[in-house]
Amino acid sequence: MSDSVKATNIVWHHSQVTRAEQEKQHGHKSAVLWFTGLSGAGKSTLANAVAGALYERGAHTYVLDGDNIRHGLNKDLGFTQEDRVENIRRIGEVAKLFTDAGVLTLTAFISPYREDRDKAREINGDSFIEVYVKCDLDVCEERDPKGLYKKARAGEIPNFTGISAPYEEPENAELVINTSHESLEDSAARVLAYLEERGILQPAS
Amino acid sequence: MSDSVKATNIVWHHSQVTRAEQEKQHGHKSAVLWFTGLSGAGKSTLANAVAGALYERGAHTYVLDGDNIRHGLNKDLGFTQEDRVENIRRIGEVAKLFTDAGVLTLTAFISPYREDRDKAREINGDSFIEVYVKCDLDVCEERDPKGLYKKARAGEIPNFTGISAPYEEPENAELVINTSHESLEDSAARVLAYLEERGILQPAS
Repeated sequence: MSDSVKATNIVWHHSQVTRAEQEKQHGHKSAVLWFTGLSGAGKSTLANAVAGALYERGAHTYVLDGDNIRHGLNKDLGFTQEDRVENIRRIGEVAKLFTDAGVLTLTAFISPYREDRDKAREINGDSFIEVYVKCDLDVCEERDPKGLYKKARAGEIPNFTGISAPYEEPENAELVINTSHESLEDSAARVLAYLEERGILQPAS
Repeated sequence: MSDSVKATNIVWHHSQVTRAEQEKQHGHKSAVLWFTGLSGAGKSTLANAVAGALYERGAHTYVLDGDNIRHGLNKDLGFTQEDRVENIRRIGEVAKLFTDAGVLTLTAFISPYREDRDKAREINGDSFIEVYVKCDLDVCEERDPKGLYKKARAGEIPNFTGISAPYEEPENAELVINTSHESLEDSAARVLAYLEERGILQPAS
């Protein structure tokens, strides 16, 4: 054994570190904020704005979105019906792992089918907060940040949500935010206020 | 807008929260401690001891192991060669998400094949720390905490690592810990000392 080993003071913790202990240490509860809505509705923008505001308040957050999921964990999945179901299932399971670690987890995926979202809710139980990022299709199509609507209209993308595939609106979302009418600041503030109301986040001091 | 919304002070954060920012807030760097070794070698025991000791020092940790992976994210996977490869791939990808969130991530899986572990290393780059939890087969078999060796010897479990399937020892593990000879306390201290040496963890004050 080296000196550096002897110098390390081990304090024992006589069980697995629990979610409750992690939450206590972080100073907030964990939860899954599941943002759902059309492409261009502003899910990623809002999720990242909320995560940033939470970070500024010292909270531990993580955003799961297409950027870190599609090219990594779910890169083996395509766009068949079966793969879309599996895509959402895995995201639901990963979100559960993060909340178990005491992290305020935000997911930003179109997740157009009620059945898939309900499965993610089932996986996450009371930790699951569905945030419907509502936006009129014509507004989304005008924004078209990735040029996807244009391609979809040209028939280059089959089964595109809102154009050639359905978006099933949430019926019991915990929060509905209409980004056609609400500013990003108001929208983010409303999510934070909800977390405070639920006792997940301590009110700002 | 309700009063509680107005009461919420939003402080803007003008980009995505980065790994470096999360690490700074947590007071330590993130990494993946990938524990590998035979069934009964003590991977989970050591990983949880290390996680607990890290927690006591205020670090943010999470242990990925059979308990939270096999019945959740990877419950669709069986024990074919293809599924075992996919099992380890997904764990590597999830570990990457956790380290991206600034979490000191510990994984405890037999992960017997060099190729699979190397893929997990490739996914995680410099964040990957392979910890070979070495233990003589006869000691593992004597411990047999889950009665698996007994079943394997009886032919009830095909392709059981160490009995009817190979365990490919790591050739370049960052740490090798022999649990036949080192106490749990010494083993955990050695892992913490390594994290300090690498500058991932601040020395205990």
